[in-house]
Amino acid sequence: MIYVGNKPVMSYVLAVVTQFNNGFDDVVIKARGRAISRAVDTAEVVKNKFMPNVEIKDIKIGTEVIESEGGDKANVSSMEITMKTKA
Amino acid sequence: MIYVGNKPVMSYVLAVVTQFNNGFDDVVIKARGRAISRAVDTAEVVKNKFMPNVEIKDIKIGTEVIESEGGDKANVSSMEITMKTKA
Repeated sequence: MIYVGNKPVMSYVLAVVTQFNNGFDDVVIKARGRAISRAVDTAEVVKNKFMPNVEIKDIKIGTEVIESEGGDKANVSSMEITMKTKA
Repeated sequence: MIYVGNKPVMSYVLAVVTQFNNGFDDVVIKARGRAISRAVDTAEVVKNKFMPNVEIKDIKIGTEVIESEGGDKANVSSMEITMKTKA
């Protein structure tokens, strides 16, 4: 599982490629809120620039509840992209 | 098809709900670049707050080439979320 945050896209691309090169058949890329678009960038760059033998297996979206230290709750969208090596 | 840009999420939510209320069985929400996270927010708010009888049918991601007036080309990620009324 790769959690995408505020770093440059390439650092997450490298993390995904490393997991595949270490023998994983599936790699899940997860993000919340504004990082979601960066997760999509990560998956697309892995597939189009580095690993043509990898494809998108599944994409899920959802809503998570974030609770601040003060106890306030807010909803934030989340996304999971599962990538796999082609059979 | 609803194109998600830089307006508040609620304006896109209203557009999606209106299409379903006008009798569409499927509504596609499309976004590029940073608007992708807003497209996910739109789908989640429609499903969780307004239309419990609507579900995610399919999510696709891709890459589009944008050409500027000067002729420069850049890749941008895109996403399409298809929502449908439950059978």
